[in-house]
Amino acid sequence: MKKLLSNCGILSSTGDEFNYIEKGYLAIDGKTISYIGTERPQGSFDLEKDMTGKMLIPGIVNAHTHSPMCLLRGVGSDLPLQSWLFDKVFPIEDRMTREDILAGSQLAILEMLACGTTSFTDMYMEPEATVETVARSGIKANICRPVQEFDSDEDPADNYRIRESLETFDKYQMSCDGRIRIDFCIHAEYTCTAPVAAHYARLCSEHGGNMHVHLSETKKEHQECVDKYGKTPAKWFADLGVFDSTAMAAHCVWVTDEDMEILRDKGVGVVHNPTSNMKLGSGFAPIQKMLDMGIKVALGTDGAASNNNLNMFEEMHLAAVIHNGYTGDPTIMKPETVLRMATVNGAYLQGREDTGELLVGKKADIAAIDLSSPHLFPLLDPLALICYSAQASDVCMTMVDGQILYEDGKFLTLDKDKIIADAAAAVKRLYG
Amino acid sequence: MKKLLSNCGILSSTGDEFNYIEKGYLAIDGKTISYIGTERPQGSFDLEKDMTGKMLIPGIVNAHTHSPMCLLRGVGSDLPLQSWLFDKVFPIEDRMTREDILAGSQLAILEMLACGTTSFTDMYMEPEATVETVARSGIKANICRPVQEFDSDEDPADNYRIRESLETFDKYQMSCDGRIRIDFCIHAEYTCTAPVAAHYARLCSEHGGNMHVHLSETKKEHQECVDKYGKTPAKWFADLGVFDSTAMAAHCVWVTDEDMEILRDKGVGVVHNPTSNMKLGSGFAPIQKMLDMGIKVALGTDGAASNNNLNMFEEMHLAAVIHNGYTGDPTIMKPETVLRMATVNGAYLQGREDTGELLVGKKADIAAIDLSSPHLFPLLDPLALICYSAQASDVCMTMVDGQILYEDGKFLTLDKDKIIADAAAAVKRLYG
Repeated sequence: MKKLLSNCGILSSTGDEFNYIEKGYLAIDGKTISYIGTERPQGSFDLEKDMTGKMLIPGIVNAHTHSPMCLLRGVGSDLPLQSWLFDKVFPIEDRMTREDILAGSQLAILEMLACGTTSFTDMYMEPEATVETVARSGIKANICRPVQEFDSDEDPADNYRIRESLETFDKYQMSCDGRIRIDFCIHAEYTCTAPVAAHYARLCSEHGGNMHVHLSETKKEHQECVDKYGKTPAKWFADLGVFDSTAMAAHCVWVTDEDMEILRDKGVGVVHNPTSNMKLGSGFAPIQKMLDMGIKVALGTDGAASNNNLNMFEEMHLAAVIHNGYTGDPTIMKPETVLRMATVNGAYLQGREDTGELLVGKKADIAAIDLSSPHLFPLLDPLALICYSAQASDVCMTMVDGQILYEDGKFLTLDKDKIIADAAAAVKRLYG
Repeated sequence: MKKLLSNCGILSSTGDEFNYIEKGYLAIDGKTISYIGTERPQGSFDLEKDMTGKMLIPGIVNAHTHSPMCLLRGVGSDLPLQSWLFDKVFPIEDRMTREDILAGSQLAILEMLACGTTSFTDMYMEPEATVETVARSGIKANICRPVQEFDSDEDPADNYRIRESLETFDKYQMSCDGRIRIDFCIHAEYTCTAPVAAHYARLCSEHGGNMHVHLSETKKEHQECVDKYGKTPAKWFADLGVFDSTAMAAHCVWVTDEDMEILRDKGVGVVHNPTSNMKLGSGFAPIQKMLDMGIKVALGTDGAASNNNLNMFEEMHLAAVIHNGYTGDPTIMKPETVLRMATVNGAYLQGREDTGELLVGKKADIAAIDLSSPHLFPLLDPLALICYSAQASDVCMTMVDGQILYEDGKFLTLDKDKIIADAAAAVKRLYG
C-alpha cells in the first residue's frame, strides 16, 4: 500500500542532523519511507492525507519503562525511597497476576500511542502478557524478563527467571516481523548474585541477545556495591561478562569517570530517566559528559509508579533543562541532542537501526504534531518548539511501520473502553 | 445567575488543606461559590452542567510572567545568557510597538486560559495593551510597568517609566470590578539606581501599592550587587524601603539565609520559576527552606522566551521533582505544597484573598480536568495525579468569577483565529 502525507512540516534527517522542511511531502511504500521532499512525488497513492498545519517528527522511543506499573500510578507518592518500594510497591507487585500485568501493559500502550511513542523497551514479570498486547496493538517493543537472585547458594541452572527469560526469547524473538524483540535482562547488581549474572551473561552472548540492566541508579546502591565487592556496579557487570553482548544500562546516575570509560569501551548504551531520577531524589546523571565521550544515550520514562506517566515529551523537556540548572550552563543539552536521544538513539539501543529518523529507506515510524494550539505559535525554531513548548497532547497521529495506530484521540487497533474497564477490574483486585 | 456543576470530583479546601470529594456538586451564585458537597443542593439553577468524569480544581495562578514575550518563543534557544539577552531578546524588544505587545499578550491569554490559568501577574512595557486584553478576555491579572534607570545622575522625578507606572495605576487599579489590579514594579537591582528605587518605593507606599521585583535570579547579578554595594540585592531593596509595601520577589535563586530572614520579616512573597531557572542555568532556589520559614511561595512560568510556554502544569511538575533530585530527598515538595503554590499562594501574593481555593464564599475561579485519558488512570491519589501525571491539555474548562472562558478547545470571550492572525502579523513585523 502506498500512502502520501501532504503539505506538512517534516523534521527529516540528513543522517547526522535534523533538517526541517516547512511544507513538504512524505510518501510511504508498505512499511517504509519512500520519499521526502518539497515537491509532490510522482505516481499514484492508495491513501493521501492532507496534513496542513501539522509537523511530522520521528516516532518517539521510550527506551526504559516497566509498562504494567501504570496500575501503580500515584502509589506512595513522596515516601522515602525504601519505604515506597518495600512498604508500597513490592507488596502490590507480589499480588499481581498475569491478568493484572496484561491490564497494566494494555493501559500503558494506550498512553504511549497517544503520546507519539512508536517503540518502547520494557522490563517486567510475565513478559508474555506484554508480548500479547504489543502484538495486537501494532507498536514496537523490546521486552525482557528481569533476572534476579538473592540466594548466594542457588545453582544458576535452577533460576526460574532465567528459564522464563530464555523461553520468552526462544518463542518471541523477532516475532511480528521484528516488531517484537526479546532482550536479556539482569535487574541490577544489588538484586543478583555473581554466579547467576555470569551464567546468564554467557547465555546472552551465546544467543546473540541484547542485555538490559539497571546501573548505579542511587548513591546507596552504588556505594554498597563498592563496599561489598571493592568495585563499582559497572566494573562488577563488566568483569562478569555482562557487557560482552550489546547492552544498555538504565539510569547511570552515580557512574564514575572510570565507569563511563568502561561503558564507552564496551559500547554499552545508557538510558537517561530524568523525571524518575528527580522524583525519587536519585540525582543528576552526567549525561552531557557521556555524550561528549561518544556514549549513546537514549531517554526513558521509567515506570509510571515513579514518574507518574509515560510522557516522553516531559522527559525531553526535563532532559533539556535540568542539566542546565545543575551545571549553570544554558548551552548544554541542546534540543537536537535531546530529540536524538528520544528517537534515533533509542532505536539504536533497541537494535533497530532501520528506524528513529525521517529518512528515505527507514521504517515509517512517525508522530504528527498539531501546530494549531496557541502554545506552539510562533514557530521560529522547530527543534526548540518540540523540545520546550510542545506537550504530548499535541500529538495528533502515531504511525508505526506505515500503519496509523492513533489519530485525533482514537485508537485504531485497541479498544480504549475495554482496556480502561480491564484496568479498573485489575485496580479493584489489587487495592480492594 | 445560579449555576450547578454536578457529579464531579472536587479538590475542595478546608482552608488549611485539600479535601477531595470523589463525586459531588459545586454551586455558584453570581461570581461566588455558594455550595460544595456530596448531596445535590436545594433550589433551582439557571444552568446545570453534568461534569461526570471531570475533576474541579482551583484556578491556577501564574504569579510571574511577561505575557507579550510569547512572540519571542524559541528565540536564541541555548545561547549563553548574556548573548541570548543582549544579542537576541533586547533588539527584538526594542522593535516592539504597542500593537505587537497587544498581539503578544492576547496570544498569551489564549494559551493560559487553555491551561486552566485564571489569573496571572504580568510585568512588561505598554501595560495598557495588556489591560485591554485582560479586560476583554475575562481573566484576572495583576499588571505592572517595570521601572528601570541606568543613569545615576537622572532625577527620579524625570523617570518616564515611573510616570507610566503611576498613570496606569491611577487609571486602571481595581478596574473591571477588581479583576484588574495594577502593581508597582522595580525591574531589578541591577537595572535601577538607588535614588530612583527609593523614590518609587515611597510612591508605592503612599499609593498602597503592591511591589513586584526580580531578585537574585543569577549568581552573577547577586555577586555584582554585593561587590558594588557591599550588600545583597534583598538588603539593598529593604534598605531603600522597597519592601515597606506588600511585595513579591521573583526567582530568589541565590538569596542567602539572611536574605530569607529579610523576606520573612518584611512579609515579602516569593515566586518560584522552575523551568526558567533550569533552562537559563540560573540554579535551584531554596524553596523548601523558604516554605519552612513561613515565606509564602507562589509559582510562575516567567516569559515564554525562557520557558518556552506558559504551562503551569509543567511548572508544578518541575517544582515537585527537581528539588528532590537536587537535595536527594524524595519527601520534600509534596503535591499539596506545590498545588497550593500554584493556586492559593499565588492569589495571596496578588492580594486576592477571595480566591485560590474551592471553598464556599470564595470566587468561582475554577479549572476542570477531563479524567478520561489513559495517563490519568487509575485515580489513586488526586493530588499526585494533578501534580505528576496531568498535562495542561487535560484542562477541559476554565472559569473565572463564575463565567466559563474556555471549554473543550473553544474560547468563549476571545476570537482565537483573529488572535493567531494578529500574532502572525506581529511576527512578520518583528522578524521580517
